[in-house]
Amino acid sequence: MLQLYFFPMACSLSSRIALMEAGIEAQYHLAHIWTKQVVDDGSDFRDLSPKGAVPVLVLENGERLTESAAVLQYIADLKPETGLAPRPGDFDRYRLQEWLSFIGAEIHKAFLFPAFWYKDDGSLAKPRARIAQTLSVPSAHLAEREFLVSNSFTVADAHLTWALLLLRPAGIDIAQWPPLSAYLARMQARPAVRGAIATEMALRKAVAA
Amino acid sequence: MLQLYFFPMACSLSSRIALMEAGIEAQYHLAHIWTKQVVDDGSDFRDLSPKGAVPVLVLENGERLTESAAVLQYIADLKPETGLAPRPGDFDRYRLQEWLSFIGAEIHKAFLFPAFWYKDDGSLAKPRARIAQTLSVPSAHLAEREFLVSNSFTVADAHLTWALLLLRPAGIDIAQWPPLSAYLARMQARPAVRGAIATEMALRKAVAA
Repeated sequence: MLQLYFFPMACSLSSRIALMEAGIEAQYHLAHIWTKQVVDDGSDFRDLSPKGAVPVLVLENGERLTESAAVLQYIADLKPETGLAPRPGDFDRYRLQEWLSFIGAEIHKAFLFPAFWYKDDGSLAKPRARIAQTLSVPSAHLAEREFLVSNSFTVADAHLTWALLLLRPAGIDIAQWPPLSAYLARMQARPAVRGAIATEMALRKAVAA
Repeated sequence: MLQLYFFPMACSLSSRIALMEAGIEAQYHLAHIWTKQVVDDGSDFRDLSPKGAVPVLVLENGERLTESAAVLQYIADLKPETGLAPRPGDFDRYRLQEWLSFIGAEIHKAFLFPAFWYKDDGSLAKPRARIAQTLSVPSAHLAEREFLVSNSFTVADAHLTWALLLLRPAGIDIAQWPPLSAYLARMQARPAVRGAIATEMALRKAVAA
């Protein structure tokens, strides 16, 4: 069985959404990204993955795959009939990769990461000044589209849903971008998305308590 | 013919390297990432791509593809026989995506981007403190390997080569990681890599002048 190492409401949420959308059972292990401890057994998370970052997907054969862009495509390709990723050879597969890169680099690492890790110093001034321009890109794209890629839910939507959920705790009001607000509401109406978020919100409160 | 919009020594360098390694002819257009002007014709680069960022690859059918992770995989798949990307279905394809994500998010957006855009304020303190841990990941991986993925040059190597070249102007001495120094020297010994860098270094000096 696949095993996903995650931290509640961190970017590994999108991998949980993908697994649930695909109907793939998995074991979930909470890895604390601040203490670097795996909660199950108290082991050092860095022994499993030197990056000490989530997600880590451990495959049946023991291989460990990291980075949301790779993990999400791997999960999607396990169940190609779900359409969670356009098939290789379809040009939309590159569109999927383009969005995964934009979300992972421009929204996550250029803004959300500093917002949560660097929040107490000057490091956040420039990222904050830039996020409006960044978010205008998916907002314009989604103004007349239901999903990021093709005409159905893909792992890029799983990833953007996660990123948009974190705007509020990062101090950004999504209401500035009505297409993004409406999109997030649509995504949260999906049972798998709603279920994944409910599970992780409850765990996040337990971790913080 | 493919058209690549680039800025000299920006991350679009890895797309130029990939095109040259693949032996694919392309038209190159210099897009100034500060003034947002296309140097050829003075047009506004944001009319071509609202992100105003390089690379932009314009395909024969006029589609515009952005984000290095997507552009590099697209170029590699045009010439699968070159091995610039493991074929879809090969597990190493996910390893390639994992490295493209790590380089694009952790090295580029979490460190190089702030180093060049935010250099005059407090925004750089935390990223600079973190880069050593980030670079220890590829350094450990390359200590006993010639290439990032599989046993041959892939577009992940093109992308890491670009990122490592920018460490010095970003104020980081690569000599702290002997495996990365040795790797960069090996990559720069490749004719296509050396040719791409020489072309862009000359253009960069002209732009700066």
